[in-house]
Amino acid sequence: MKLYIGNKNYSSWSMRPWVLLKALDIPFEEVMLRFDFSEGSAFYRTLAAITPVAKVPVLVDDDGFAVWDTLAIAEYLADRHPELAVWPRDRLERARARSLCAEMHAGFGTLRSLCPMNIEAFFPEIGARLMAENAKLRTDLARIDAIFSSAVGPFLFGAFGAVDAYFAPVVMRITRFGLPLSPAAAAYVASVQQAPGVAAWVADALTEQDFVADDEPYRTQR
Amino acid sequence: MKLYIGNKNYSSWSMRPWVLLKALDIPFEEVMLRFDFSEGSAFYRTLAAITPVAKVPVLVDDDGFAVWDTLAIAEYLADRHPELAVWPRDRLERARARSLCAEMHAGFGTLRSLCPMNIEAFFPEIGARLMAENAKLRTDLARIDAIFSSAVGPFLFGAFGAVDAYFAPVVMRITRFGLPLSPAAAAYVASVQQAPGVAAWVADALTEQDFVADDEPYRTQR
Ligand SMILES: N[C@@H](CCC(=O)N[C@@H](CS)C(=O)NCC(=O)O)C(=O)O
Ligand SMILES: N[C@@H](CCC(=O)N[C@@H](CS)C(=O)NCC(=O)O)C(=O)O
Repeated sequence: MKLYIGNKNYSSWSMRPWVLLKALDIPFEEVMLRFDFSEGSAFYRTLAAITPVAKVPVLVDDDGFAVWDTLAIAEYLADRHPELAVWPRDRLERARARSLCAEMHAGFGTLRSLCPMNIEAFFPEIGARLMAENAKLRTDLARIDAIFSSAVGPFLFGAFGAVDAYFAPVVMRITRFGLPLSPAAAAYVASVQQAPGVAAWVADALTEQDFVADDEPYRTQR
Repeated sequence: MKLYIGNKNYSSWSMRPWVLLKALDIPFEEVMLRFDFSEGSAFYRTLAAITPVAKVPVLVDDDGFAVWDTLAIAEYLADRHPELAVWPRDRLERARARSLCAEMHAGFGTLRSLCPMNIEAFFPEIGARLMAENAKLRTDLARIDAIFSSAVGPFLFGAFGAVDAYFAPVVMRITRFGLPLSPAAAAYVASVQQAPGVAAWVADALTEQDFVADDEPYRTQR
């Protein structure tokens, strides 16, 4: 299996299936397409050859079959590996985990646009200003806090699964912008940061040292 | 089972699980919460009692368990009714159907914001102007056309399933704004409009006669 991803420092969507595959110990080959959103870039040319959407992540299975979009990749892995707990084993917990992922997949627009993932950066002053100025950011964070606080521990439904992978980039945003959390939510954040897949992704991100201007509303250089 | 929905004329997300339940012949009770996005409205008060997110649709099962978010509701129905083809039976077709739903769930932002669902209305002049002015709308429509044209017939993967329910509100937007499609895509649009669940939803929408200003960028009254 090959997983096509973007820059580890910036690509919040790519992070999700990558940390999930690592947490589940599913072997895969990683293909990193450096972000370049200019027309006809190598990024877009490579993607055009494997998927109808010009976005990462894309999972290409051994038979060449391509699955795009994070949530579909999670379901594909669950389908392909029924022996692994991609989703919680309990039917109702599974439904709740899927509700949370679907909510995240389409929601939290303010948090996502104001606080882009940038793992190597640390913007606590900007985070404090954004929180003071934006009621919708406070609403997004309150909901995230409620979700994180509901973790049974160490992860949302016990062991690390797709739903925790879904919130891993959110943990990156929150910690890098220094956004305030309740103690229970902060405990979940600590668990996610220590999860093996997450720690490995972060370590790789820190070695990249690329500067992608499209993803840098708050810096002009590294 | 109870399905909480918004106005049938306007609520594109609510339409998806409703037409899916009808197409699959799963009995359910419908609870219509009239759209009212003012703080403390009956719409928000009712939702607050059943779900952590203030949005429709919400599916409440007989045991009181609530599933929110369209995609999670589709997966819940697939889990609860393995005998029904919510997703295609073939593993790879199923993955493709899920990729399309996930793509729709988070994407097509320009089409969704410029052409809101409004089943009783007909805005072909506005549609023509929007198409002429907005390159991103043309990009969204081109991708929709490619998806619709790939239908094996009469629906995307044969029988009507979650993926067709996902695109039913898109069919409403396209036909009401008179957006141009290729013949193959138009044939799929005709099938969707004739699907029993879809036709029943449209019939109900036409009897509503509510005017919800938040969903009416192009009219000041009915
Ligand atoms: N809904 C998609 C979103 C993927 C996405 O937006 N990926 C970004 C990088 S994190 C991308 O490839 N953007 C390129 C573009 O939008 O042109 C998913 O879950 O996979
Ligand atoms: N991702 C959600 C979106 C649901 C949604 O946005 N519903 C709209 C009506 S179509 C709503 O309830 N809006 C109320 C609000 O945003 O306050 C889903 O798929 O269920």
